[in-house]
Amino acid sequence: MSDFTKVVLNDDEIPRQWYNIVADLKNPLPPPLGPNGKPINPDDLAPVFPMNLVEQEVSTERWIDIPEPILEKLSLWRPSPLYRARNLERALGTPARIYYKNEGVSPPGSHKPNTAIAQAYYNKEFGVKRITTETGAGQWGSALAMACCQFGLECRVYMVRISFDQKPFRKYMMQVWGAECIASPSDRTRSGRAILEKDPDTPGSLGIAISEAVEDAVSDENARYSLGSVLNHVLMHQTVIGLEAKTQLRKVGEYPDVVIGCAGGGSNFAGLSFPFLYDKINGRDMRVVAVEPAACPTMTRAPYAYDHGDVAGLTPLLAMHSLGHTFVPPPIHAGGLRYHGMAPLVSHCLRENLIEAVALHQLECYAAAVQWARTEGFIPAPETSHAIAQVIREARQAKEEGKEKVILFNWSGHGLMDLTGYAAYFDGKLSDYEMPEDELQKYIGVMKDLPKPPTG
Amino acid sequence: MSDFTKVVLNDDEIPRQWYNIVADLKNPLPPPLGPNGKPINPDDLAPVFPMNLVEQEVSTERWIDIPEPILEKLSLWRPSPLYRARNLERALGTPARIYYKNEGVSPPGSHKPNTAIAQAYYNKEFGVKRITTETGAGQWGSALAMACCQFGLECRVYMVRISFDQKPFRKYMMQVWGAECIASPSDRTRSGRAILEKDPDTPGSLGIAISEAVEDAVSDENARYSLGSVLNHVLMHQTVIGLEAKTQLRKVGEYPDVVIGCAGGGSNFAGLSFPFLYDKINGRDMRVVAVEPAACPTMTRAPYAYDHGDVAGLTPLLAMHSLGHTFVPPPIHAGGLRYHGMAPLVSHCLRENLIEAVALHQLECYAAAVQWARTEGFIPAPETSHAIAQVIREARQAKEEGKEKVILFNWSGHGLMDLTGYAAYFDGKLSDYEMPEDELQKYIGVMKDLPKPPTG
Repeated sequence: MSDFTKVVLNDDEIPRQWYNIVADLKNPLPPPLGPNGKPINPDDLAPVFPMNLVEQEVSTERWIDIPEPILEKLSLWRPSPLYRARNLERALGTPARIYYKNEGVSPPGSHKPNTAIAQAYYNKEFGVKRITTETGAGQWGSALAMACCQFGLECRVYMVRISFDQKPFRKYMMQVWGAECIASPSDRTRSGRAILEKDPDTPGSLGIAISEAVEDAVSDENARYSLGSVLNHVLMHQTVIGLEAKTQLRKVGEYPDVVIGCAGGGSNFAGLSFPFLYDKINGRDMRVVAVEPAACPTMTRAPYAYDHGDVAGLTPLLAMHSLGHTFVPPPIHAGGLRYHGMAPLVSHCLRENLIEAVALHQLECYAAAVQWARTEGFIPAPETSHAIAQVIREARQAKEEGKEKVILFNWSGHGLMDLTGYAAYFDGKLSDYEMPEDELQKYIGVMKDLPKPPTG
Repeated sequence: MSDFTKVVLNDDEIPRQWYNIVADLKNPLPPPLGPNGKPINPDDLAPVFPMNLVEQEVSTERWIDIPEPILEKLSLWRPSPLYRARNLERALGTPARIYYKNEGVSPPGSHKPNTAIAQAYYNKEFGVKRITTETGAGQWGSALAMACCQFGLECRVYMVRISFDQKPFRKYMMQVWGAECIASPSDRTRSGRAILEKDPDTPGSLGIAISEAVEDAVSDENARYSLGSVLNHVLMHQTVIGLEAKTQLRKVGEYPDVVIGCAGGGSNFAGLSFPFLYDKINGRDMRVVAVEPAACPTMTRAPYAYDHGDVAGLTPLLAMHSLGHTFVPPPIHAGGLRYHGMAPLVSHCLRENLIEAVALHQLECYAAAVQWARTEGFIPAPETSHAIAQVIREARQAKEEGKEKVILFNWSGHGLMDLTGYAAYFDGKLSDYEMPEDELQKYIGVMKDLPKPPTG
């Protein structure tokens, strides 16, 4: 195995338990708050999520068993291979050893089904008949469509209108998997109709689509809502990635000096890094880096605050880094890392100095993605390219310092559904726009009258 | 491993040799003929292909070593996993056990890179600087672009104009991998200009694009041409699929009763089946089924004859089942199995009764593809759906007969780049058109003055 390209595991090496980092945090996570400004009870969430998932959301158990039917479905593509990026290492002339988890091997091509399968299973167990959700470019919606199909659940996806119109391919994927995909804002919900009344030509946004999906779920007792990132249980479902990576690295006698992931809502980043943070919390010397786009600088330019997850303010308040729930990222940015908030757990880890955050510009990320494709073969998703760009920075630094650094990152998905972004990049249509501070502050101002989380 | 979903192999279990079925044929393959009607010499092919590949094309050695640099590049995605399609089995209620090789795990998402990597390597070794090829919807062009990138070769792809205009995504893929992609017919070649003069608005065809790519290659001493299917060496490069499958099935104590593949030019079918035909030739009782579209019925309705591989008649004459080199399949067919000829080796095996051929209509194939996606998760390519439809037929028959049949097939690629075909299917825009016999005979008539292969 001295010159292996990848480390594969058998079906029976999928982790049997998820890792719940909540059990190991020094300071507790500030609780979600209800409309009255008080911590919500799990029961308050009952109209939105099935109670078995609500229990996971608030659990403080370190390890949670993965039910057998979930393991069986995950085995359609898991364990995912751990690769060593030898071609890139050679191209960079770096002494660093670069490893990555290839989460693009799943049916929809990203890490998203890791939680979609789990959520569909728990909803089914709870007796739910129909799941609603929102999707931006469609990565999450297609993952949930696939998962619902596996467990015989109906699935309704509110897709941001501009993507629905301009990028129909993910919509077709959802159709193949039997889901109903609706352009958002739609006339199906009060929140959708209210927005259409004010602005019939709105391109929509993730925040609006969340409002619609939540409203749809709570107005049908047989339906529940599902979120593809941000929440504790969603991040926990992704920890199979990091747990597998640990097994795979152990097989080749390696341990990372730095773990890297791109972060939109935070779930792929958390999925890889949290099992390693367990070691860091227990004294291991290592770095963990979350990479966000400079166009949506949640961790690097936004405050840690209580904010809603959606535009209409239907969701509880979460303590997180947030650009404000009305934030609309600039359209010249092609990536999918556009959500206004960052997962409470990831935000918390940043405050606790367990992780670092960097913001990268998209031209550097596309250049990194092209270099990746031309060396390692696989075409990365625009989100993933942010992690790759940081990996290249770290590998170059290792070269300058002459250090044998071990880098591990999450290759969160392939870019075969995102080729128009590459075309725009080659055509010179993308830029490194950064929002001026005063404009950013206007968005952030929307949170000024909301409760504040404890300062630590 | 009693309830495994898939069987994975390590990098070092990629086969070290290709299997060349030519060594085991009872009757020799009729030789390719030159313009004078006489068998061509290997030297005649020197302007078109590098001599190391010409040697492979005419080799009668049973096993040919795979060079180390090819193994290293193949390990970017190989060995491909062998799956058992348990969800589909359950949905069909069949006693059959269904296994498939997932060739969709490669960077461009199909089996094509198995030969693209090999061809790029041999061209590089021979000192070639630039490779030309043609592509229909772009699956082969993107695979060759990826492979050329890995070995630092220039790549120029003539892409059938209608696909170039209507399906730009594969073109973007080629761009990401650094290849030049040109709409065919183009003004870069004499054959292209001749066709544009007659019909400036022609949608193009694979036969025209081949003419252009060959002409381009032979008019530049630093360039050679590459073909993605049909030829002996191309089929041989694909035998890693079947050889891996044998290893994987052995690990779970299985051997197939029937091996199935879809067949356009024949390479993915041959890649899986030829290593099993070795056993059949040596007395093993089993069936091997090639599935073609009823809209392009090369094996089931076309004669075994000598014909050109391209419209302009630049290629040597090959003994094969052919609909005539001017054949244009009906545009209402969405699949990629549209080539007028069938690989000489596959055609020969059919004549020798080593294999069977069936033609299926596309609506049955799309229905099978959707059933597949909704049970097994992965969305298949339209080509692959032909194999799946036949698998479902065989599995249903096993149910009727109460027989525990073992079915193995080649899942040749994913359909993520082909979602418009699915959309057309859901919208009821596809039909089961079959060409009337008199129209078919007109196309076939183009071969009437060409030499005839020996009747055996």
